[in-house]
Amino acid sequence: MWFVRVNMTDLSASIEEAPEAYKILGGRGLTSTLVAQEVPPKSHALGPNNKLVFAPGIVTGTSAPTSARISVGGKSPLTGGIKEANAGTSWAADIAVMGIQALIVEGFPKEKGKYWGISVSMDGSKPKVEFFDATEYAGKPLPQVFPDVYARFGDRISICSIGMAAEHGYGNSGVVFNDQAKRASRYAGRGGLGAVMSSKGLKLIVLKREGAPGVKIVDHALFDQGRKNMIEALRTHAITKPKGGLNTYGTAVLVNIMNEAGGLPTRNFSSGRFEGAPKIAGEAIFETNKQRIGKELYNHACSPGCIIQCSNTFHKPDGTEHTSCLEYESDWALGADCGIDNLDQIAEMNELCNNYGLDTIETGVAIGAAMEAGVIPFGDGAGAIDLVHQMGKGTPLGRILGGGAEMVGRAFGVTRIPTVKGQAMPAYEPRAVKGIGITYATTTMGADHTAGYTIAPEILGVMGKQDPLSPEGKAALSRAFQATTAFIDSSGHCLFIAFAILDIAAGYQGMLDECNGVLGTNWTAQDILDYGGKILKIERAFNEAAGIGKEADRMPEFMKTEPLPPHNQVFDVPDEALDSVFGDL
Amino acid sequence: MWFVRVNMTDLSASIEEAPEAYKILGGRGLTSTLVAQEVPPKSHALGPNNKLVFAPGIVTGTSAPTSARISVGGKSPLTGGIKEANAGTSWAADIAVMGIQALIVEGFPKEKGKYWGISVSMDGSKPKVEFFDATEYAGKPLPQVFPDVYARFGDRISICSIGMAAEHGYGNSGVVFNDQAKRASRYAGRGGLGAVMSSKGLKLIVLKREGAPGVKIVDHALFDQGRKNMIEALRTHAITKPKGGLNTYGTAVLVNIMNEAGGLPTRNFSSGRFEGAPKIAGEAIFETNKQRIGKELYNHACSPGCIIQCSNTFHKPDGTEHTSCLEYESDWALGADCGIDNLDQIAEMNELCNNYGLDTIETGVAIGAAMEAGVIPFGDGAGAIDLVHQMGKGTPLGRILGGGAEMVGRAFGVTRIPTVKGQAMPAYEPRAVKGIGITYATTTMGADHTAGYTIAPEILGVMGKQDPLSPEGKAALSRAFQATTAFIDSSGHCLFIAFAILDIAAGYQGMLDECNGVLGTNWTAQDILDYGGKILKIERAFNEAAGIGKEADRMPEFMKTEPLPPHNQVFDVPDEALDSVFGDL
Repeated sequence: MWFVRVNMTDLSASIEEAPEAYKILGGRGLTSTLVAQEVPPKSHALGPNNKLVFAPGIVTGTSAPTSARISVGGKSPLTGGIKEANAGTSWAADIAVMGIQALIVEGFPKEKGKYWGISVSMDGSKPKVEFFDATEYAGKPLPQVFPDVYARFGDRISICSIGMAAEHGYGNSGVVFNDQAKRASRYAGRGGLGAVMSSKGLKLIVLKREGAPGVKIVDHALFDQGRKNMIEALRTHAITKPKGGLNTYGTAVLVNIMNEAGGLPTRNFSSGRFEGAPKIAGEAIFETNKQRIGKELYNHACSPGCIIQCSNTFHKPDGTEHTSCLEYESDWALGADCGIDNLDQIAEMNELCNNYGLDTIETGVAIGAAMEAGVIPFGDGAGAIDLVHQMGKGTPLGRILGGGAEMVGRAFGVTRIPTVKGQAMPAYEPRAVKGIGITYATTTMGADHTAGYTIAPEILGVMGKQDPLSPEGKAALSRAFQATTAFIDSSGHCLFIAFAILDIAAGYQGMLDECNGVLGTNWTAQDILDYGGKILKIERAFNEAAGIGKEADRMPEFMKTEPLPPHNQVFDVPDEALDSVFGDL
Repeated sequence: MWFVRVNMTDLSASIEEAPEAYKILGGRGLTSTLVAQEVPPKSHALGPNNKLVFAPGIVTGTSAPTSARISVGGKSPLTGGIKEANAGTSWAADIAVMGIQALIVEGFPKEKGKYWGISVSMDGSKPKVEFFDATEYAGKPLPQVFPDVYARFGDRISICSIGMAAEHGYGNSGVVFNDQAKRASRYAGRGGLGAVMSSKGLKLIVLKREGAPGVKIVDHALFDQGRKNMIEALRTHAITKPKGGLNTYGTAVLVNIMNEAGGLPTRNFSSGRFEGAPKIAGEAIFETNKQRIGKELYNHACSPGCIIQCSNTFHKPDGTEHTSCLEYESDWALGADCGIDNLDQIAEMNELCNNYGLDTIETGVAIGAAMEAGVIPFGDGAGAIDLVHQMGKGTPLGRILGGGAEMVGRAFGVTRIPTVKGQAMPAYEPRAVKGIGITYATTTMGADHTAGYTIAPEILGVMGKQDPLSPEGKAALSRAFQATTAFIDSSGHCLFIAFAILDIAAGYQGMLDECNGVLGTNWTAQDILDYGGKILKIERAFNEAAGIGKEADRMPEFMKTEPLPPHNQVFDVPDEALDSVFGDL
């Protein structure tokens, strides 16, 4: 296994054996460990001392199902804290089979305005890094970039890049990877890591996997047994099975569910119910596609080896492709949170986010906040599309939005700004779903549903149903979910395996057996929690040294004072409960 | 003594006897105490739970020289921490003689877009508050507002107001008071307290002092003795004496001195020396005025009873008044920091800041940062004037600048942003003057020279000269200055008495005797330090609870890595030294 260090100061690379001490680390576990060890917490996120770390998960690159995730880590320009964002893409599988445990981008370009690319290929059993001038790819929407890169390097590559949002230095800018149809659509989107990559003058990382040795598996029998149990669990569970909820309606299946629960944040978090929800729900996406292409369209995999296959493609009235993938979070942020109920307009905004390299959640919430400020009215889809274009172009208004929801609040004096640690809240209203609010408040990442998705028990009945409106026991619930998630994010699996493995014990054991099979470890369920807890501890220590202590583990004031319709509840989790989540970590 | 509480929710006021426990508190000591006690540290600065507190100093309103200061306190929308900013104005003397120890603005307007004014007059021995609709005064530059208010309420009033910057909700917006010539020019400028006042729907506070009882003095003989010694010290010291440095050249006398010391931040803190310094120095202001009005013009007092009289008025080529006052900090921020060496352009920007209600320091540093981003070139005075207009008008670019230097950095991805706790650094380069850097880093206020002006010994030789480039002993120096300053800011004196009282022992005793005379206390020099230290402790506790702990007591990274010409030094004060400033407070 290799550590590839790319130095952008002198355009050099070093390829070294990964230290034995890091053997069991993958994904988020490895990115957070390296960032905490190598990045001074008080360094400027866009300065020379930040680093950008890529790490595939423990089982990524194997035949373990739904495990082609790549973690990207660094200090976030949006939150000022540690950041891990991950994406499902062939790029993840490719870097794993090439034996690269971590790719670490360091240093700082001597020349401003110039961009470089690197191509990584195999030189025998060792990876090789070559630099090329990539300035010609800058300043363009990504659909004008990816085809050229494929044309230049051939079809059998995987691509990592950044968009114009990152080039502008936005806190709202993601790192993008190709999907299975060669689109620039798979984002490690949150927290502005795209801007970190841009600050280093790095525009492209092209992987040529030809000749890659593959991932070493210590105990094949154990791995195969785990893999089979995992597949069985995913194929059985109602949420993840073929033609189940996710495969049919995509993640946007949640629109109607969350709306019904009164927890679909609407018009800048002023209501938990959106009258236009049915028009933008996953069911509507499915039906609209059916009308427009003349047949039922089930979803596809974002990355090789995924058997959940939840990624949709939305089509235009003429039956041609409009955008992929229109996730629940994007659909909600660009839709309900802006009071927009027109799927074609939402799809256009989603596609523009993909093209410019913007995080859809931060974009939608920032626009919702701008609507509250009166920049354009709620529901103005055409106006909202224009705002996304302005973000791409880097107009002054676009730059305010590119700084995220919190910057919109500061620029326009808006106090109802749904952020934690500077990052916009996702599509679950904390006043209607208390556990997810605890996750938003306490995760190291800034408001982030994927850090501890208590929606599973609170809304979806996974592990048995818990009352979403009650704060009781939710601190412990969030903590358990956050620790488990930190492990899953390290294993390389998509977080969506959680539905199946939390409900089906053999699936959970399957995850363990897969990891133990690859690494030769003997982890038990308790080890999973300990592993996750250790990562969280490392991340929290980084944040604290960066000046983000437990006082930052708080919800914005308005959520504690403004009751949210329809339940008319405030966020009533006491500070002590928030502090208890990691009190003794 | 009265506490006047103004409730902007129901437009009511309560006037109550000030609690005995607060008797010895004035100015900053009182605003910080009340803010810490009554404002939840995590509340939104522009939300319903913040408060705006006005408090005159202990001896304000008496015949103590140079003591007509008003402290304004609240939670800052710029730094997120506690804030006190003070100004010299007749408003300070008036509120003091009316017996009002504190005026506290609370609550939140029910109606958006509507502004109110209050007039405070005497009803026998008790103050009386009346509300009036002030919406007509909003949306206009202040020179269009103040004359109308004088016309409405008569000439014998004092006025407190806010400008369009505050109405836009900017982190860069001050609270303004009248000067002796009825101009809107005396600012409690830093930290965005103007936006706090605006958020409460309060546009004007008019004081009608007629019938005011005056400030009660417990021991007249002691007070008179102190006052005489203070006057003697101020009239003797080279910096503060009539036709001395400040009276002749104003605070801008520092331009050449700081430039000579290599500590005049130039072109967004990229050099410590500005080749255009002599063209914008206090001496140049004096000579230009002399040419344009045909005689030597010495400076005037900003407020009643000031014998230092450091406020200048800059004149246009035709001899008419252009702006007052053009302070060193403003001259530097709008000049050297932007690479602008044209006094007429600087004066115009200064006047626009006064008219729109902007802090000149934050404005200049924000424009300097925008110049570094390439928005306009360094030295482009006409372009910079346009940017100030954009701030006033609230264009998107103006709003980015209105958010302060740090928002400019985020919007344009600029990493050389000279701020601490979100507030722009003033006119002394920390890499060339280490002690002031320690003050910037550790004060509760965000980067602020007035919080602990170690320039006095490091540059001006007050108390004996200390090597500005050496970090040795500077933590203790900064601490002593910060504690003493917290007291001076509570006493009601202008900070500029410090030069004289630190060099002349009888002057220091004079300050003590003045305060002891008014209050009937028996304070010694040690009590001053204890009093100041206690205020700092209260402020630090508020900040910590707001999430601004000691990790925020740091300089921006570039100052630790980029050597500054001409001395080619970095800011080499170790974190431990910074932490030692208040380590055992």
